[in-house]
Amino acid sequence: MITVLKSGVTTEQRAKLIEWFEEQGVKVHVSEGEYQTVLGLVGDTSKIDEDLVSALSIVETVKRISEPFKNANRKFHPDNTIIEVGGTKVGGGNFAIIAGPCSIESREQIIEVANDVKKSGATMLRGGAFKPRTSPYDFQGMKGEGLELLLEAKKATGLPIVTEIMNANHLPLFEDVDVIQVGARNMQNFELLKELGKTNKTILLKRGLANTMKDWLMSAEYIMAGGNENIILCERGIRTFETYTRNTLDLSAIPMLRSLTHLPIVVDPSHATGVAALVEPMALAAAAAGADGLMIEVHNNPQKALCDGPQSLTPEQFDHVVRRVNKVLEAVR
Amino acid sequence: MITVLKSGVTTEQRAKLIEWFEEQGVKVHVSEGEYQTVLGLVGDTSKIDEDLVSALSIVETVKRISEPFKNANRKFHPDNTIIEVGGTKVGGGNFAIIAGPCSIESREQIIEVANDVKKSGATMLRGGAFKPRTSPYDFQGMKGEGLELLLEAKKATGLPIVTEIMNANHLPLFEDVDVIQVGARNMQNFELLKELGKTNKTILLKRGLANTMKDWLMSAEYIMAGGNENIILCERGIRTFETYTRNTLDLSAIPMLRSLTHLPIVVDPSHATGVAALVEPMALAAAAAGADGLMIEVHNNPQKALCDGPQSLTPEQFDHVVRRVNKVLEAVR
Amino acid sequence: MITVLKSGVTTEQRAKLIEWFEEQGVKVHVSEGEYQTVLGLVGDTSKIDEDLVSALSIVETVKRISEPFKNANRKFHPDNTIIEVGGTKVGGGNFAIIAGPCSIESREQIIEVANDVKKSGATMLRGGAFKPRTSPYDFQGMKGEGLELLLEAKKATGLPIVTEIMNANHLPLFEDVDVIQVGARNMQNFELLKELGKTNKTILLKRGLANTMKDWLMSAEYIMAGGNENIILCERGIRTFETYTRNTLDLSAIPMLRSLTHLPIVVDPSHATGVAALVEPMALAAAAAGADGLMIEVHNNPQKALCDGPQSLTPEQFDHVVRRVNKVLEAVR
Amino acid sequence: MITVLKSGVTTEQRAKLIEWFEEQGVKVHVSEGEYQTVLGLVGDTSKIDEDLVSALSIVETVKRISEPFKNANRKFHPDNTIIEVGGTKVGGGNFAIIAGPCSIESREQIIEVANDVKKSGATMLRGGAFKPRTSPYDFQGMKGEGLELLLEAKKATGLPIVTEIMNANHLPLFEDVDVIQVGARNMQNFELLKELGKTNKTILLKRGLANTMKDWLMSAEYIMAGGNENIILCERGIRTFETYTRNTLDLSAIPMLRSLTHLPIVVDPSHATGVAALVEPMALAAAAAGADGLMIEVHNNPQKALCDGPQSLTPEQFDHVVRRVNKVLEAVR
Repeated sequence: MITVLKSGVTTEQRAKLIEWFEEQGVKVHVSEGEYQTVLGLVGDTSKIDEDLVSALSIVETVKRISEPFKNANRKFHPDNTIIEVGGTKVGGGNFAIIAGPCSIESREQIIEVANDVKKSGATMLRGGAFKPRTSPYDFQGMKGEGLELLLEAKKATGLPIVTEIMNANHLPLFEDVDVIQVGARNMQNFELLKELGKTNKTILLKRGLANTMKDWLMSAEYIMAGGNENIILCERGIRTFETYTRNTLDLSAIPMLRSLTHLPIVVDPSHATGVAALVEPMALAAAAAGADGLMIEVHNNPQKALCDGPQSLTPEQFDHVVRRVNKVLEAVR
Repeated sequence: MITVLKSGVTTEQRAKLIEWFEEQGVKVHVSEGEYQTVLGLVGDTSKIDEDLVSALSIVETVKRISEPFKNANRKFHPDNTIIEVGGTKVGGGNFAIIAGPCSIESREQIIEVANDVKKSGATMLRGGAFKPRTSPYDFQGMKGEGLELLLEAKKATGLPIVTEIMNANHLPLFEDVDVIQVGARNMQNFELLKELGKTNKTILLKRGLANTMKDWLMSAEYIMAGGNENIILCERGIRTFETYTRNTLDLSAIPMLRSLTHLPIVVDPSHATGVAALVEPMALAAAAAGADGLMIEVHNNPQKALCDGPQSLTPEQFDHVVRRVNKVLEAVR
Repeated sequence: MITVLKSGVTTEQRAKLIEWFEEQGVKVHVSEGEYQTVLGLVGDTSKIDEDLVSALSIVETVKRISEPFKNANRKFHPDNTIIEVGGTKVGGGNFAIIAGPCSIESREQIIEVANDVKKSGATMLRGGAFKPRTSPYDFQGMKGEGLELLLEAKKATGLPIVTEIMNANHLPLFEDVDVIQVGARNMQNFELLKELGKTNKTILLKRGLANTMKDWLMSAEYIMAGGNENIILCERGIRTFETYTRNTLDLSAIPMLRSLTHLPIVVDPSHATGVAALVEPMALAAAAAGADGLMIEVHNNPQKALCDGPQSLTPEQFDHVVRRVNKVLEAVR
Repeated sequence: MITVLKSGVTTEQRAKLIEWFEEQGVKVHVSEGEYQTVLGLVGDTSKIDEDLVSALSIVETVKRISEPFKNANRKFHPDNTIIEVGGTKVGGGNFAIIAGPCSIESREQIIEVANDVKKSGATMLRGGAFKPRTSPYDFQGMKGEGLELLLEAKKATGLPIVTEIMNANHLPLFEDVDVIQVGARNMQNFELLKELGKTNKTILLKRGLANTMKDWLMSAEYIMAGGNENIILCERGIRTFETYTRNTLDLSAIPMLRSLTHLPIVVDPSHATGVAALVEPMALAAAAAGADGLMIEVHNNPQKALCDGPQSLTPEQFDHVVRRVNKVLEAVR
């Protein structure tokens, strides 16, 4: 961390600031220029509050050189984290294929889709019971009843399940859920993150629509600071000015995060693009870019159903995607 | 709402869709073109799920013409909403000046600042007790203890108070709070919004960093759908590529929202810019653009304190802002 | 194109507008609602000025259903365009590998790099002679002299060459250049596009930093409207709030553009990410997503040279990328 | 400028780099940490190519502390620049009101509008002769003929004129033009900027849609590096995800630029918002925020004309805006 002091700072003021830094456990190197003095902070600066320092009247600017995240940081944990959940692995060469409908609609639907995606090679089943919707008038999910049906599908197929939580008070309902998803709109719901940090559940943490990779890793850090290190990051597109796609899928996040963190990274091409025809090419691209897995929306009867998004694949289309993804994975290994 | 059908849709498929639309309570006008058929939906389309319709295999595109929000919509409520809280009014010509420190730090601090800002003309006192911070290692606020101190400052000065909620479970602590703030990162925490919709508290709803005005009004709609119509919207900047300012303050949102909704709109120039020197010019601009109020960070001793943001004003600077804002308000009346 | 009229429009005003639309060669279907009248325009609406229509006092909104681009539109040209240039092909299953230094620095450098990349499988040589730089104080390229050296490298290796034009007045210097690049910052330099439309050169049109795919195709349309249909589109990242990468590479543009246009699409992972370590994974991802080619920065001596960007690969790294890209191409075919 | 070296850099490598920096005329302070060495560069670093340094294999990161612009920098030119053109002044307390139609359509139109806006208090007349349009099929302006008509309007009213240039080859036509406008899409057309730097014309430089304030000042620097210091900056909105407004007007750019540069800053609320009803509130806000002037689209007969944008005001509306703006200017003085 570099702290540039304003010109005119007195020796006393400077000494006081340096003393305070040293109390935080970092060493300070002073570099005096003609117009300004630069303090170089060496050591673990992750716990120093950047906003606080830059607010001081004697400070011109503060720039971080090392990252403010620590538990999630690859520098301190060079080996890839491998998540083991419900008999399947994610990360460190283990590729996850998470598939299922956007919303759980009925026992018949979820069990049929679960069987279909398992046959095609899915390693986990997804399905939404609590649905975050922009409008209060849109379908909000089957809630507790949906969770029950998802658990039945888990029993029927043996697939571990992934489903979204929107409220920490619902945690008791998630006892038999394998992976708890935190949606994009809750990525900075810090109260929820803290509660999840107290559990030992695997958390699938989606990237927020307006969040940098740094914000994202800081949200992972919230969960990890509580003691839960079982986190899978999920890239699902960011908000830009482009309107042909719902969001802009940021695949460069895969190799970039790979260098910054040891946590596994999966990609959701369905929500990122919002267009069924783009799911396959983006799934292939994610695999080629080094993702640790995919999360894909599959619906058994898109023509008839009213609740699938326009980005859902049929089981046949999904089967085709998995076969091609596997070819790409072989090619890049 | 306009629904464009794909070419090749059969008469039967079309009839079935029209029937379904009519069941939702809207009238359908069919316009047949050479290549495509357009269905024009007339009536209250706010409860039709756009995603759901666009997901149908026979539909090419769906475009809304009327807005999906209803309770917040000026079309159905032409008069400005005036919020009355703690003896003060916001909206419909009543200009609110909400001021106070980012974080409550001590009894001495909050009471001193409260007295200072009251003297300068503030109509409400703000102060953060529960602080949403990007990093788990940054100061998270004094929480319940902070709320107690804020209530003391309310008693001491008679100013109604505004403070942020991060967790619906904390609601009992907010019983004597006049205005509950929902922060930008929780704007789409729908579970929180629903709980606030069940209260009769005034809610100050901040705009999310990546949220359009439509998203924002839909979040207001969540609260209103629960029966609570006491909402103040607060513009605080959106995320863009610009780096000189923390966010980009979108002042055009003021007149735009004015035409879309009857709810009052206040502006927070402190968080939007992140730079103390920009607070005054942006406060003046907001007043000139027709805002119903301002929310400004004021700290009594920025030199000494470690917790104020770099955007805090001293009480003297704040006093200067209020005097100039009042001149602008007179000029534009 | 859908035109929604304001309520209160007289029958005469409406008839006049319909008459005017019909004069532009389109048919108009009228759909009368309780509150508003919708005009559906059928036929070739690409030449109707949307801004102009929406400016009329009797019009509430205008929404395009068909695209405003025509020559670039796949609807009217279902077959993929295959560009043939200097003995090599791009598009329709022909994968281009364009490689070379950001800037031409010396005869030795450009010829050495040209030989290196040819050996590894490059199908074209790139090299900048005229360099658009954000700062007037940064190196602006070797200009005419650089072009001469690039032509020497072309002779020495037989590779067709790609180089950027910044000024239509320089066109005579580009007579022996195979592919003329239009940089991101000139994507909407319409005067330049018009001049290039009068030539029969192949144009590599980079996407602008803040441009939607629609803007981009409209810029291609500028060139095509002049009679030159030899265009290669090049995705190179868009500007977002993310700061770890220079820009955000939008790979979903590949399949999206594939459905919208018949023009070939290549990807430049070097400029998009600005980080050498991200070039290989993004090159693999682009190949998997169905790109028609890649454009990659290669420098023969990054350690010594002062002018390569931090995103340049060494010839050895480039060789590795090509071998892996070829494997991915096989896997997805 | 701070240069952080990679760990493992040899003493020789470091010495060589320091030597090179010193050759560029800057002093280097070395700060050695446990894990990394930081070089602090002191002096005029504006001519050091940041990309070039960060490309070096021994460099981890480079961060600028001082700005890369010099001629435009307030630090080196503390006094406000006042532009004098055609008998009117802009900057340093002189408020410019530039008004006129988007496009020049006829002698009658431009002269009528010119008289109207002059009567209301406009200090300059604007009118587009060369029009940059996204589509090649949209109206491209009356070109040379339009310029002739604009010069007639100048003679008739005595108002200095502002009009856009799209091609440096057209410069001879602009001999009697008082202020030459560079449009947003040409803000980084560096060849055009260089040519304008050789003239002594006043240049109105609009901000690009995806350009930071730093980019913008670097573009001003291009013109100034050529010797022409007569530049007016014009904020006209940036591209964001918001869709209710055409662009997002960034009014915080006014006070931010005020601290960074001595050049005058005007605001174009018409193009920024694209909505006539937002022009007045945004004009008032710009005046309150400290702008040096406004640029407003005015059309004499929006109902009849086909070429005005939906953001044009009638002369009556414009008159109302000017009267209110003057009241705000008085209030903030």
